[in-house]
Amino acid sequence: MKARVHVSLKNGVLDPQGKAIGQALHSLGFAEVGEVRQGKLIELELTGALAAKPKAEIEAAVKDMAQKLLANTVIENYSVELVG
Amino acid sequence: MKARVHVSLKNGVLDPQGKAIGQALHSLGFAEVGEVRQGKLIELELTGALAAKPKAEIEAAVKDMAQKLLANTVIENYSVELVG
Repeated sequence: MKARVHVSLKNGVLDPQGKAIGQALHSLGFAEVGEVRQGKLIELELTGALAAKPKAEIEAAVKDMAQKLLANTVIENYSVELVG
Repeated sequence: MKARVHVSLKNGVLDPQGKAIGQALHSLGFAEVGEVRQGKLIELELTGALAAKPKAEIEAAVKDMAQKLLANTVIENYSVELVG
């Protein structure tokens, strides 16, 4: 069982990496690109008893991981997707 | 029109960030986590004439952006998804 956690900056939070990517794309001639936002996609392999639990419990555990470590919930949103 | 580019390390390429996240999760008590891989999810807003083109052409343009800037194709894979 795998889980995917997508962590992205909240709207309104400045994204300097996204801005730098946008400017670089423009300088490479890709003029028709507006706002660029960069987030993280963390893929976790879940093992043992956790992997065998009902989906709702697994999702709750992964959300707990996101709350405690994977996302800075002050400036970031996260979403959890279970795979397989 | 938006495009999402998911950039991830190729299999076999060492992922120190993923390892560090895995160890941190273990130290927080999340023992049932195996391999962790971290990738990037870049969301691009496409504007002007590009946004009005047929999907296949838009996808080709975004793949071109990935080849030239967004991904290091020696060690990274990328996938393109059009949204909206």
